[in-house]
Amino acid sequence: MTAPQTVAVLLSGGLDSTVALHWAARQGRVACALSFDYASNHAQQELACARWQADSLGIPHRVIDITAISRHLDSALLRGADAVPTENYGTDNMKQTVVPFRNGIFLAIAAGIAESDGCGGIVIAAHSGDHSIYPDCRETFMSAMSSAIREGTYAHLEILRPFIDSTKGEIVRIGQQLGVDFAHTYSCYRGKERHCGICATCRERREAFADAHTDDPTVYEQQ
Amino acid sequence: MTAPQTVAVLLSGGLDSTVALHWAARQGRVACALSFDYASNHAQQELACARWQADSLGIPHRVIDITAISRHLDSALLRGADAVPTENYGTDNMKQTVVPFRNGIFLAIAAGIAESDGCGGIVIAAHSGDHSIYPDCRETFMSAMSSAIREGTYAHLEILRPFIDSTKGEIVRIGQQLGVDFAHTYSCYRGKERHCGICATCRERREAFADAHTDDPTVYEQQ
Repeated sequence: MTAPQTVAVLLSGGLDSTVALHWAARQGRVACALSFDYASNHAQQELACARWQADSLGIPHRVIDITAISRHLDSALLRGADAVPTENYGTDNMKQTVVPFRNGIFLAIAAGIAESDGCGGIVIAAHSGDHSIYPDCRETFMSAMSSAIREGTYAHLEILRPFIDSTKGEIVRIGQQLGVDFAHTYSCYRGKERHCGICATCRERREAFADAHTDDPTVYEQQ
Repeated sequence: MTAPQTVAVLLSGGLDSTVALHWAARQGRVACALSFDYASNHAQQELACARWQADSLGIPHRVIDITAISRHLDSALLRGADAVPTENYGTDNMKQTVVPFRNGIFLAIAAGIAESDGCGGIVIAAHSGDHSIYPDCRETFMSAMSSAIREGTYAHLEILRPFIDSTKGEIVRIGQQLGVDFAHTYSCYRGKERHCGICATCRERREAFADAHTDDPTVYEQQ
């Protein structure tokens, strides 16, 4: 898959979106990286990594402050570290970490900004392991939202999902080939300085490095 | 059309959305009215009317501050009164008043909030005269965005468009039957205390009252 025109890249500062930024940068047409500050527990750690990665590539980085919106949303991700469950994804209480319609909100705002910036597309690091407990990660949503953004913009903006057929382990491998410094990516939902090692996203992060047979530079609080 | 469950109503404070709020209130299941402050020229006038209308019905009113987003968007609507053209809709320079993907952004944020609030639907006052110069007012967009919101939420939120087959004149008639006080609605894109009377939205407002054979309580700067 190639990025046919100038793109905006959604960059959380996590593992997947960081690799997506490097992938798009390699194509040579990144107008900007977009991060959202939605007052999540892990905002500061994530955003610092996002900034570091964009700077390392010389790509303009915009942080969109949507904390005024999050105030109206209900989620454990917005209520402090202790509200985050430590089980694997798939158990009922992981539903608490849903931020209602988060991908819809991110993509809609990104579409407005990308259209203002004269971009032709938006890159999002959706992948094959995205969780069906999050309805706004499902294919039916992504496909309808892509149509809405294509139809609702003059530029007929395209949503590009370079990793949609890849596992998280494969994304780590792609990142390694692209020279990504994974020490400057952040995944933990608890948002402390070190990754906790036991929340669902930490568990997945560890598995991804293991699956990729790649050294994991992350320092976890609990091994 | 009936609103089958609790709904959130998008309320700009303009003529159409005010009638939509009264229509939904008559159904008896409005959880809240949602207004967006996106730093438009006419924000203060519109929001004051929105607040007045919600208060008059005893409906909780939430104003979502998205000025931090608008800073990244390009539109004459965000650049002061003098940037607003005074021609009818349909001429090329009305394109300047497009706020990129505005309906997409409003609906996405509303979906997140409506899901958090346990609503079953979102009411938007889209109507048959909405302008094809705005891609995010076209049927192809609305239909795809409705699917995205239905698929991307646990509640399978429905987008309700009670006026989709009505003209603006018919909306005025419906409003009159519902007892709407139109003096507390605001349409002008220039955002002064009085409606200018010559921008495209003022022209449409006047025509709507004329079409409805209803007294227009608006004081226009230019007759």
